[in-house]
Amino acid sequence: MTTKPWDLKQCIKNYSAKGIHGITIWRNVLEGQNLRDARTMLDDYNMEVVSVARGGFFPSVEEKKRQAAMDDNLWAINQAFLVRAPVLVLVCGADGRQPLEKSREQIKEGIIRILPEAKAAGVKLAIEPLHPMYAGDRSAINTLAQANQMAEEINSDFVGVAVDVYHLWWDNNLQQEILRCGKNGNLLAFHVCDWNVPTKDFLNDRGLMGDGCIDVPQIRGWVEDAGFSGYNEVEIFSHKYWATEQKEYLEKIKNAYLKFT
Amino acid sequence: MTTKPWDLKQCIKNYSAKGIHGITIWRNVLEGQNLRDARTMLDDYNMEVVSVARGGFFPSVEEKKRQAAMDDNLWAINQAFLVRAPVLVLVCGADGRQPLEKSREQIKEGIIRILPEAKAAGVKLAIEPLHPMYAGDRSAINTLAQANQMAEEINSDFVGVAVDVYHLWWDNNLQQEILRCGKNGNLLAFHVCDWNVPTKDFLNDRGLMGDGCIDVPQIRGWVEDAGFSGYNEVEIFSHKYWATEQKEYLEKIKNAYLKFT
Repeated sequence: MTTKPWDLKQCIKNYSAKGIHGITIWRNVLEGQNLRDARTMLDDYNMEVVSVARGGFFPSVEEKKRQAAMDDNLWAINQAFLVRAPVLVLVCGADGRQPLEKSREQIKEGIIRILPEAKAAGVKLAIEPLHPMYAGDRSAINTLAQANQMAEEINSDFVGVAVDVYHLWWDNNLQQEILRCGKNGNLLAFHVCDWNVPTKDFLNDRGLMGDGCIDVPQIRGWVEDAGFSGYNEVEIFSHKYWATEQKEYLEKIKNAYLKFT
Repeated sequence: MTTKPWDLKQCIKNYSAKGIHGITIWRNVLEGQNLRDARTMLDDYNMEVVSVARGGFFPSVEEKKRQAAMDDNLWAINQAFLVRAPVLVLVCGADGRQPLEKSREQIKEGIIRILPEAKAAGVKLAIEPLHPMYAGDRSAINTLAQANQMAEEINSDFVGVAVDVYHLWWDNNLQQEILRCGKNGNLLAFHVCDWNVPTKDFLNDRGLMGDGCIDVPQIRGWVEDAGFSGYNEVEIFSHKYWATEQKEYLEKIKNAYLKFT
């Protein structure tokens, strides 16, 4: 998604040429893509799939929509299995027509319902807490404490959390909550970008590391102290950067990663 | 600010005509306004000043700016005194060029420095936690827990907190934190509006109660359980509503207040 103008093949080729050997695949690029071909391309370039994004969006006041979410999540698990992704990231969802507590209940129920399929596929489910500015429509899980709590309640080797600096940087409990999920083996993914000051768009105005006000190296330190040794994933949604030449942008990303992460 | 197109006199006249007898005055409407005349107008219409908004913006990496903020806050206290406002609301500020912890230290130092003037003027200082989406530039205090903590550390009858549903509705610790500040006498102000789904602007897309996803009556209940008996202040920043005929809008506000607050 960081290099949204590219299709999967362009991502794989260009990342690989830059010495980047891991990718999280967003499901939109898998639409209309033969998954076996995708897997062959990934293999040809020695590209490791870090995760598939995204499942989730469990809550709704409408029973029909909750059921549709189940089907969609099972399909997402299947896609993750087919591209050999060890993790499916969950953007859990929220429905502003009901209390956040109710949405959180439905999220937990949803995860428990898809868990057998996830286990069977060998795909772990990562609960990603989203910034509180998304509590109305995108996620009722808005702090790492809430995500940790839910993962611990479900208590499965196949459920953990994803830490994204963009969503969590403001939280004064972040360090302790990162240690908490690290200690119990629940820290499944780590995403980096930056928070632009000022931020102009609710979704697509993320910054490159160094552009904004997040102390990414500090949070990376906490994540490593917590025992995390997976990929540090650059995840930037940005109208501004998507509008630029993507090879040059990838070079910028690499430099920003080396300097400010 | 809720009826931004109106000047102070229009606000006072129109609010009064609708049976609204309290107002928080934003300092921009006091610019170029003789404060004695303002006080006379308020008295003529039996309008109670609930608070003056806003002081704060203490943190900066630049010493000169921190000093300028001191001067501005002393002037704000003076304005509050002159219009007989018992409370000055603080939007505490943040500087993305330094860690949030550093900004919070400077906020605390700033409040402690202006506190003697506030006491002398009989004006209480209300720390208003702002939504985490403002942590980069408008406030390093983003939860009621943080505001409560700071008010308790400063430990003065002249320092408390303001609770605004817009900033805090997403927080699963909100009820307990409202009880905490209510119990120790620190709950100085209560602001209502709604969170639009989706929200399109970081500052000026607040909803009228009932427009969005906040359970305002629930939070009002917590505030009342905590012993608060002051005004429930409608505070809506909205390009959409500001563009409408303000008398009709005031009627809508009154209806929304009676129905959804």
